[in-house]
Amino acid sequence: MEGFRISEASVVFLKKPRLKEPILIEGLPGVGNVGKLAAEHLIDEIKAKKFAEVYSNDFPPQVLINDDGTIKLVRNELYYWKGKDKQLIILVGDYQGLSARGQYMLAQAILDIVEKYGTKMIFTLGGYGTGVEVEKPRVTGAATHIEIVKKLKKYGVNFKDEPGGGIIGASGLLLGLGMLRGMKGACLMGETAGYIVDPNSARQVLEVLTRYLGLDINFAKLEEKALEVKKITERIKKMEMAAEKSEKEDLRYIG
Amino acid sequence: MEGFRISEASVVFLKKPRLKEPILIEGLPGVGNVGKLAAEHLIDEIKAKKFAEVYSNDFPPQVLINDDGTIKLVRNELYYWKGKDKQLIILVGDYQGLSARGQYMLAQAILDIVEKYGTKMIFTLGGYGTGVEVEKPRVTGAATHIEIVKKLKKYGVNFKDEPGGGIIGASGLLLGLGMLRGMKGACLMGETAGYIVDPNSARQVLEVLTRYLGLDINFAKLEEKALEVKKITERIKKMEMAAEKSEKEDLRYIG
Amino acid sequence: MEGFRISEASVVFLKKPRLKEPILIEGLPGVGNVGKLAAEHLIDEIKAKKFAEVYSNDFPPQVLINDDGTIKLVRNELYYWKGKDKQLIILVGDYQGLSARGQYMLAQAILDIVEKYGTKMIFTLGGYGTGVEVEKPRVTGAATHIEIVKKLKKYGVNFKDEPGGGIIGASGLLLGLGMLRGMKGACLMGETAGYIVDPNSARQVLEVLTRYLGLDINFAKLEEKALEVKKITERIKKMEMAAEKSEKEDLRYIG
Amino acid sequence: MEGFRISEASVVFLKKPRLKEPILIEGLPGVGNVGKLAAEHLIDEIKAKKFAEVYSNDFPPQVLINDDGTIKLVRNELYYWKGKDKQLIILVGDYQGLSARGQYMLAQAILDIVEKYGTKMIFTLGGYGTGVEVEKPRVTGAATHIEIVKKLKKYGVNFKDEPGGGIIGASGLLLGLGMLRGMKGACLMGETAGYIVDPNSARQVLEVLTRYLGLDINFAKLEEKALEVKKITERIKKMEMAAEKSEKEDLRYIG
Repeated sequence: MEGFRISEASVVFLKKPRLKEPILIEGLPGVGNVGKLAAEHLIDEIKAKKFAEVYSNDFPPQVLINDDGTIKLVRNELYYWKGKDKQLIILVGDYQGLSARGQYMLAQAILDIVEKYGTKMIFTLGGYGTGVEVEKPRVTGAATHIEIVKKLKKYGVNFKDEPGGGIIGASGLLLGLGMLRGMKGACLMGETAGYIVDPNSARQVLEVLTRYLGLDINFAKLEEKALEVKKITERIKKMEMAAEKSEKEDLRYIG
Repeated sequence: MEGFRISEASVVFLKKPRLKEPILIEGLPGVGNVGKLAAEHLIDEIKAKKFAEVYSNDFPPQVLINDDGTIKLVRNELYYWKGKDKQLIILVGDYQGLSARGQYMLAQAILDIVEKYGTKMIFTLGGYGTGVEVEKPRVTGAATHIEIVKKLKKYGVNFKDEPGGGIIGASGLLLGLGMLRGMKGACLMGETAGYIVDPNSARQVLEVLTRYLGLDINFAKLEEKALEVKKITERIKKMEMAAEKSEKEDLRYIG
Repeated sequence: MEGFRISEASVVFLKKPRLKEPILIEGLPGVGNVGKLAAEHLIDEIKAKKFAEVYSNDFPPQVLINDDGTIKLVRNELYYWKGKDKQLIILVGDYQGLSARGQYMLAQAILDIVEKYGTKMIFTLGGYGTGVEVEKPRVTGAATHIEIVKKLKKYGVNFKDEPGGGIIGASGLLLGLGMLRGMKGACLMGETAGYIVDPNSARQVLEVLTRYLGLDINFAKLEEKALEVKKITERIKKMEMAAEKSEKEDLRYIG
Repeated sequence: MEGFRISEASVVFLKKPRLKEPILIEGLPGVGNVGKLAAEHLIDEIKAKKFAEVYSNDFPPQVLINDDGTIKLVRNELYYWKGKDKQLIILVGDYQGLSARGQYMLAQAILDIVEKYGTKMIFTLGGYGTGVEVEKPRVTGAATHIEIVKKLKKYGVNFKDEPGGGIIGASGLLLGLGMLRGMKGACLMGETAGYIVDPNSARQVLEVLTRYLGLDINFAKLEEKALEVKKITERIKKMEMAAEKSEKEDLRYIG
């Protein structure tokens, strides 16, 4: 593409699929990478196909190095999937926008695309940082309309008792900006410690979503990843305990 | 609103009331949330009606979660009220702009609206951080013209003796930019510790404003909130004192 | 001015004086406020007249409170002075731009104005932070052309022996951007500790400048200010020494 | 240039050489200044000629002071060189853009220029921070296409075993954005401690590059600089060891 320039949100279409009222599902990097893990697993399992790449001068000025030594410019990607009675557009990517302005511009560029396809419903996936490890992470929700809140409660989604709080980044903006265009939607947030990637939390989020959508997928790969993370976490914990112990001994010595 | 996009300041009108020379009153979040508390209380008491919402890509990229699990995109709001001999436009909201540029753009968008209604007078409400708790907060002022300074002194408003100092954010900008458009105005700042919301300080500010405007409102709800805050503050203080005490004991042990 | 909006650099002309090749002199806030003090003193002494105000949405979103309780929006100001064989435009103000982009835009807006007046020479005034108090501050220089370096050396201006270093902000940009428009100029930097306003250093800078320009001005007011600052500095020093002493005693107690 | 204004990327051409498919080589400031040292040494040795300067309002608002007391506005520079069977454009400069947006704009402005000359290949040079001193720095690579990875391995370039990682700044962006325009390229990163300029690492990078390009240049000046840096580093190390020793003694005294 001669003279190709990247603005705050530049979309490159690899193909232009025909879609009818696809549901938008967002899973970009965030707390515990819960949304990203969930959306990527969904893409893999239902074999969704990439149809567009989104570049932005509000992404970090950076390329990523692939395993084979080749590189790719950081970007977001849009996948589509056509089921019998449902169609999906799934948004994943390497980064969210760095600035508030960039975040708004990117969310609006995504909405421009799905609005043309007739999208009426959006699910954004993310993590809900608790600061402590959670054995059985609950899925906390927030929605654009009260009838969606009610429906999600039936699927076991937790709604916060205490007032206040917010949803930061694409998971919040796509819903908030979508509402202004007449779209509905919900954010599903898996509880997670917040300081480590959390495939277990991603699994809980994805279970709620797929049940809601009537999809039947396999979670084996997410479970595998969750086991790997657990092993690493436990190894780190042992090292920290050892370090702490030796520190205390040092202090005793100084004291 | 198909294809709706948010710029640095996008105004959505819910209705277009007929107004004549309304006085603009601003109470956005700031030191001790004094201005916000005062303006929101005023809206509640005089039953002002919302007529416009202001969105901005310089607000945090965030939605807030309501008590019922639904969400709203962060925004500012404009209310109007028609009295017998006076009309008001009241500006409240979740956030101020994040950047200098955004702050200027937002203040100018507000002035564009009220200028069309013929606004000639602006009151901005805020807190004046003292760093220490104030039992009986004074109201400090600053104004666009010396005759307003003189008039406000009659209402008990304090004007600083030492030179220098400034008013940061919308409370300053609306006045400074309004002056350039031939408007007059004043900022009323209630003394406040600065590190906790202060309904008591908001009450003092609102008392001066309503006396100046010849309005008669009830302060019971602000007093209630002030009592709540007082209780919380005292509980925190006790906890801090206990913590401090135990820290000192630890130090003695180490020493 | 109905609908008046501030961009990155908005100039409001109070009058449009007829000028011929005026020399531009800049003294904006910076290290030790040396440039600002020098330029303001020059304006006072030669009774230069204000002809333009420059506003910017890259200045802090803030108004300053005057001694009488009235306010002014932060801005830069341009003054002019017509001598027998020389004319001056003097740039002073409350702030420099907050961002790199804003700094460039503001400097270019100033150059647009003086270029129309035929300006060929620019002097920028500033401080050169040494980190320690300087009894007899030297004036260090840098210039657009080698012949100006040579000429300034005759006026006692010091040029650094070690290579490297730079001039940050308007004092650098006006010269660097001016060069690209064919203008010449120099920066005069008074040595100063850097952490306190320094009228003494401003005096040294102004002495070089006025001798170079063939102006004869009185320095009494700057000397007065320098004495005041000296008194304050000495008081602070005593307090710090007392605090340090008591701290040492505390440490001894703990040790 | 009357009214000359600097945008995010403003190119000033000193001449317009006729070039045919020149290879772009980038060496801007970065980790250990490896890329900058390498590119500047290459320019000196092959006597490449400057043909363009690039200014940007995303560079620091600053002029640099030359050894003779004159100044220059911070900028990037483009040099060209015509060999028998190869032509080069070399990009060097004082700074990279400060913001993500500026970085994208600058890289795109450079690509606009070289694309017109028919550039098909880009080499970006940089450092790879290891955090510890490296006696014999390896050259690590990343490339736009797998066939370039394979070719570079033959020249002894190391490709990382562990997945992940990225290339930040112009060295990454020129390749990533170039790919979108159909260009190929590679980044050569010399291992370096990261906290000191590293001519030794620059030499390794330049050796790989010149062998790949079939150029034969002298490295004496880089070796000289490497020796100088080594002497300084060792002096600092001795000082640090002395300081550490005296600190330990103090601690013993307190303990």
